[in-house]
Amino acid sequence: MIRTKLAVIGLGKRGFYWVKHVLLGLENVEVTAVCDSYFDRAEEVSQLVASKYGTPPAVVTADYMEVLASKEVDAVLITSSWESHIPIAIQAMKAGKAVALEVAGAYTIESCFDLVKAYEQTKTPFMFLENCCFGRKELMALNMVRKGLFGEIVHCTGGYMHDLRKEIAFGKENRHYRLRNYLNRNCENYPTHELGPIAKLLDINNGNRMVSLVSVSSKSAGLKEYINTTEGVDPELKTVNVLQGDIVTTIIKCALGQTITLTLDTTLPRYYSRDFSVRGTKGMYEERTDSVYLDECDRDKEVNWKPYFLNAEQYLEKYEHPIWQRYLEQGVKGGHDGMDYLVISAFLEALQQGLPMPIDVYDAASWMAVTVLSEQSIALGGTPVAFPDFTGGYWNGNRRTNQGKYSL
Amino acid sequence: MIRTKLAVIGLGKRGFYWVKHVLLGLENVEVTAVCDSYFDRAEEVSQLVASKYGTPPAVVTADYMEVLASKEVDAVLITSSWESHIPIAIQAMKAGKAVALEVAGAYTIESCFDLVKAYEQTKTPFMFLENCCFGRKELMALNMVRKGLFGEIVHCTGGYMHDLRKEIAFGKENRHYRLRNYLNRNCENYPTHELGPIAKLLDINNGNRMVSLVSVSSKSAGLKEYINTTEGVDPELKTVNVLQGDIVTTIIKCALGQTITLTLDTTLPRYYSRDFSVRGTKGMYEERTDSVYLDECDRDKEVNWKPYFLNAEQYLEKYEHPIWQRYLEQGVKGGHDGMDYLVISAFLEALQQGLPMPIDVYDAASWMAVTVLSEQSIALGGTPVAFPDFTGGYWNGNRRTNQGKYSL
Repeated sequence: MIRTKLAVIGLGKRGFYWVKHVLLGLENVEVTAVCDSYFDRAEEVSQLVASKYGTPPAVVTADYMEVLASKEVDAVLITSSWESHIPIAIQAMKAGKAVALEVAGAYTIESCFDLVKAYEQTKTPFMFLENCCFGRKELMALNMVRKGLFGEIVHCTGGYMHDLRKEIAFGKENRHYRLRNYLNRNCENYPTHELGPIAKLLDINNGNRMVSLVSVSSKSAGLKEYINTTEGVDPELKTVNVLQGDIVTTIIKCALGQTITLTLDTTLPRYYSRDFSVRGTKGMYEERTDSVYLDECDRDKEVNWKPYFLNAEQYLEKYEHPIWQRYLEQGVKGGHDGMDYLVISAFLEALQQGLPMPIDVYDAASWMAVTVLSEQSIALGGTPVAFPDFTGGYWNGNRRTNQGKYSL
Repeated sequence: MIRTKLAVIGLGKRGFYWVKHVLLGLENVEVTAVCDSYFDRAEEVSQLVASKYGTPPAVVTADYMEVLASKEVDAVLITSSWESHIPIAIQAMKAGKAVALEVAGAYTIESCFDLVKAYEQTKTPFMFLENCCFGRKELMALNMVRKGLFGEIVHCTGGYMHDLRKEIAFGKENRHYRLRNYLNRNCENYPTHELGPIAKLLDINNGNRMVSLVSVSSKSAGLKEYINTTEGVDPELKTVNVLQGDIVTTIIKCALGQTITLTLDTTLPRYYSRDFSVRGTKGMYEERTDSVYLDECDRDKEVNWKPYFLNAEQYLEKYEHPIWQRYLEQGVKGGHDGMDYLVISAFLEALQQGLPMPIDVYDAASWMAVTVLSEQSIALGGTPVAFPDFTGGYWNGNRRTNQGKYSL
């Protein structure tokens, strides 16, 4: 078995989680270096690795370029602050280190093009780690779409609906990049859950593409009220502006006429949801009620006045995606409902077998660009902005060529 | 008891329903005239009325102006085709007949201003019959909003999510105005469920106003596929274009910074929903899962990862709106979950007691204008369009002056 020598760059909450709950349980990977500018974080993760392997990994706190120069590193998992994702990924590709990039939005359209160029110039393997592409229900829906169960697909919704007020408001104490982003920007700042799974089922960059976007933001009230009414929050925060609106609604139009609605909803009280839904001419799946509705079964029954709460479970029997069929047989592992294990396994399989990455640099660039475009559209009062074509005219080709076990 | 002499203009499915299931059961109204250009429709409703009263109402099939000239008519209920709503309402006000106008979208902004002018010049009582303003859960949410349970309101959603493919595709046989509208327009063609209840809770035209709108349409696929695959559909329809997109997403921005998302979703398979949700800094209500989430009860319980399916029922005990408390005591009547009875009772109460109408001409004009503005925005590729101020600068006044039993 090939063991990929992996460095983890960025050891905040997410990097720590990756190492502890996923990477140390994998036999086809060896964590050979860990990197963070905070010494305590690097030290903690180093001890975690040492306790598993017997020997500690290389610990880098000065400059991630050291990691990229190391012969003991084949690949990097980038779990650093959002702002640094693309710069580090580009340097890694240039250094010939395969890249597994955690999700984030981008800050400029130019940086998205730079990411693509770095890949095209180096051909260093690159994958974007959108774990929700491997969600069980997302994959069931993909499977049902590909089998034609929902007919012609017309519309999808997705969102990041997660009450993050505590995490953001205590961002100084947690040294979390979210805080400064919420203070200084107003945009769809976390688009890729659930855009990733939607882009896959709509064949974005693979026969279809996103052509325009509008984004409108509500006022900003939730985080500020939380800051002003919650004990222990840094008092300095009470005097600063929060630019991020509570609810950002984005509508994307695709070349083949479908629409995608994305909602960012992270600073008001609510339950967690990714608001995933797929709508076609013959049926639908909806995450919020976890329900499937198929025209052929349900039309003319006159029962369609209420959602079939949670009936999607029964469709798993017939339409479980092969990735999850195998996964359940071998035993679900790791974090976030097992999605983390699958997404990193997909990366390692493609890397070790020389297959195309199931979520490639064009996917990354176009999904991350949503943040930039939404910021522009909001600043322009909801004016539509055009989507760049990061494939340079090749979006209509068929790049779904990965034939491995984790192929999307 | 005052009995209002009411004429019903427009006797399609909706007019018939009003007479049969609501009006003939009311003691404070007498149906004195029925009007439709189709003789068979007028005749059928006339017989219905005769069978209740013993004597038939006046039957008009030539010209609705005859109805407006009659001394036996105090008020008109307008349930005709969408296109004729505003013209008939204007003529009725000019003739001094109080107007109860069924819901629809408008076709031009000018016509919305004309409606307002007709009211301002004549002061003839006018009410817009948005029955969903009297929905039980909508009123509970309004009550909770006014009591401050949800904190500062930031965002609302609403929609008309109703699989109408059969009704539209058989529009020729049913002589239904929806068919021509779906063939010839692309817009948010039925915005007022659920904009009405949302506008009330956001104090639109009453301290707040809608300032801009963007609207994006998906492709049109559902109705066409239904037409092509369903037995019995008029074969001529197979060769015509359907301009109406399946899903139209509209985002409205308000003067006080709130956003409203509306979805028109009527030509794909689905369950019925009005997608009502209210989001505030302290809590939320959501129709799709029929759930309430309150920060003070639920924060820090770490249980907010799943919706509280159907838990809104338990909040009815404490937060049932007074209108519904009384209604339940006296017995729920009439159509559409009892909303029709409430909305017409609100009209009759205000008319008979000389109170301001709870849903007035400014509400009607601004809610109906959404259809026009969305058509424009879609035609312009999702460009934001400005909302006219139908109050002429008086939106910031307090017009919530109706103190009757049905006051909103």
